[in-house]
Amino acid sequence: MREGTLHIGPSAVPYRYGAHCLPELCEAIAQLRPASAVLALDAAVQSHAEPLLEQLRQHMPVHPFVIDPHENHKRLSLVESLMDHAVAVGADRTSVVLAMGGGLVGNTAGLAAALLYRGVRLVHLPTTPVAAFDAVFSLKQGVNLGAGKNLSGAYLAPSLIACDLSWLATIPRPALLTGIAEMAKNVLAVLPDWESDFTDALAELEFRPLEAFDSLFALGLHAKAPLLATDPHERHGALVFEYGHTVGHALEAASNGAMGHGEAVAWGMLAAAEVSAQLGHLADADLAGHYRLLAHLDLPPARIALGRFDRGALADRLAIDNKRGHLPSAPGSNPMVLLRRLGEPVRGQDGRPLIPVPAEMALDAFEKVAATEVM
Amino acid sequence: MREGTLHIGPSAVPYRYGAHCLPELCEAIAQLRPASAVLALDAAVQSHAEPLLEQLRQHMPVHPFVIDPHENHKRLSLVESLMDHAVAVGADRTSVVLAMGGGLVGNTAGLAAALLYRGVRLVHLPTTPVAAFDAVFSLKQGVNLGAGKNLSGAYLAPSLIACDLSWLATIPRPALLTGIAEMAKNVLAVLPDWESDFTDALAELEFRPLEAFDSLFALGLHAKAPLLATDPHERHGALVFEYGHTVGHALEAASNGAMGHGEAVAWGMLAAAEVSAQLGHLADADLAGHYRLLAHLDLPPARIALGRFDRGALADRLAIDNKRGHLPSAPGSNPMVLLRRLGEPVRGQDGRPLIPVPAEMALDAFEKVAATEVM
Repeated sequence: MREGTLHIGPSAVPYRYGAHCLPELCEAIAQLRPASAVLALDAAVQSHAEPLLEQLRQHMPVHPFVIDPHENHKRLSLVESLMDHAVAVGADRTSVVLAMGGGLVGNTAGLAAALLYRGVRLVHLPTTPVAAFDAVFSLKQGVNLGAGKNLSGAYLAPSLIACDLSWLATIPRPALLTGIAEMAKNVLAVLPDWESDFTDALAELEFRPLEAFDSLFALGLHAKAPLLATDPHERHGALVFEYGHTVGHALEAASNGAMGHGEAVAWGMLAAAEVSAQLGHLADADLAGHYRLLAHLDLPPARIALGRFDRGALADRLAIDNKRGHLPSAPGSNPMVLLRRLGEPVRGQDGRPLIPVPAEMALDAFEKVAATEVM
Repeated sequence: MREGTLHIGPSAVPYRYGAHCLPELCEAIAQLRPASAVLALDAAVQSHAEPLLEQLRQHMPVHPFVIDPHENHKRLSLVESLMDHAVAVGADRTSVVLAMGGGLVGNTAGLAAALLYRGVRLVHLPTTPVAAFDAVFSLKQGVNLGAGKNLSGAYLAPSLIACDLSWLATIPRPALLTGIAEMAKNVLAVLPDWESDFTDALAELEFRPLEAFDSLFALGLHAKAPLLATDPHERHGALVFEYGHTVGHALEAASNGAMGHGEAVAWGMLAAAEVSAQLGHLADADLAGHYRLLAHLDLPPARIALGRFDRGALADRLAIDNKRGHLPSAPGSNPMVLLRRLGEPVRGQDGRPLIPVPAEMALDAFEKVAATEVM
């Protein structure tokens, strides 16, 4: 079992990851000495929850609350239902909220923990690769407003992150692909030396998934830890993790759910690399390196073939991108993460890795990616 | 104008209080250089808001959002409506939320500011004495859950507290009385040397209200500042400000809205003093001092005459008091703030000013107060 402490600003967050390590995870939760636990539980992982519940109940009362993880449900009303449940079953200030599931459950239960009695302790039990290798390494908790994704939230350091990697072994492809895309992002934007570790892990995924997950976990942790240590609110250096997320978010939203987050971010990274090259930041070899690495994701180019996405619809989405608030943005311009070489973002005037890019240039870059038959 | 900085833990909160000082207040808001402002506005103070809006709009776009300050509306759904409004009018991460009104507006808009984009800046513009002299000196923002008051919330340091004391001059009696009761609490539990300042201010209220408000502001600030400096989350020494709030909250809730917070806290302080005396902590002279000081509030004893409150209903309320989570509380026992002399709380085992008291003893003490014809 991997055991250690992630430092996010002043917060020290213990983690435990291993294969078939349920007794150790329950022991770690019990060491928090909560009066009781409220288990926010993704409906899709109830079979994993049964043995956890049985073992954990030897240590404390546990009250499950099942969440149907649909993006439309990720609202304050769901946060309130979870808090109402917690109060009804007698949770007090020393209780913990356990979030078992993917990013949606982690984010929603995380915000409930942040708000209940103005803050109780949170334990992440991630069951998808993107949650386990990426989303839980963050203080950011939040839900959607009608106007957009994750516009309402708070910061809360988890008191523990605990994952049995065997939970991840039966994961559906979109969740798997998103985890892989975010790890590809870590290689391209932060840790280029890890390229062979990453491609080796992908090759292992089918036949030795637990070993592959262990490698991907190491990649996620090593990419994020140094940046989170000094930028706990992810408003400065850690904005590099938004690489590919400008065009990516626009694609995801304009597809009305047809395109998953991982695929959208992969195309978005290619578009960002094309912009970086066009502005003279990124050498051709590093641009080609993007196409080479992302070819491992097996994304069919027909998915974004010219004509499938309406340029006007993408432009409308870029106009409300949530990174715009980080920089004073002129109309028609978007702050984007660009690279000057693999692993090294271009720094803006304030030192942050965000550069204003005309939306038209970003859209042109996306169309160039869509016309390129290399993946 | 009084101008200074309140230190709440690591947060430095500037304040400006004066009579007829609107231009200075608008200037102070403008110095925050927000892109725009969302003005959460108590429906009852729209006449005060008109000149503020006019002057502030010379500095920035201002978008009012009127709140009907009913306790039943103080829920996450109202917080969400305010955030939806802010996004719809184009608020970004550099915008400010202005909270103009009493405690309900301050708490609700404060939570919206804490959650919008995971935190934008908050400016309190208190228009009631209890808000201006007490509630705004806090990081605590929050709203109610179905199960109880303020169970859902967050901590956010205001970026500015600004008050034109002339806003307070037309205040209805329940809001006035609550402000006075909390200042009486400050005298009894924290600053007994300020008794004559307090009673002088009460005598001035009718004929020189602005001077009286200025004295009460000074009392509120001086009582809270030293304790908030070292206990920003009000979970240790600052729990002394819960004096009178155990029996007080129970009375307020059991009255179904017939008894205001201020009156309830006043009776609650007498009950807490009776308990303190019965347990041998408080001398008879200091118990008598409670009755003497609170007589200035002109509360008719008939309001709590025996038989008006059902002992069982009060016991039910005590059983769910929100201070119970601060201490491991045996069933039938409530953590209460008790005094060993005026200005000096009894310290519990962990140094906090909370002592477990059998609910039956608290109820007996209340009945003794109800049978005492001294106010």
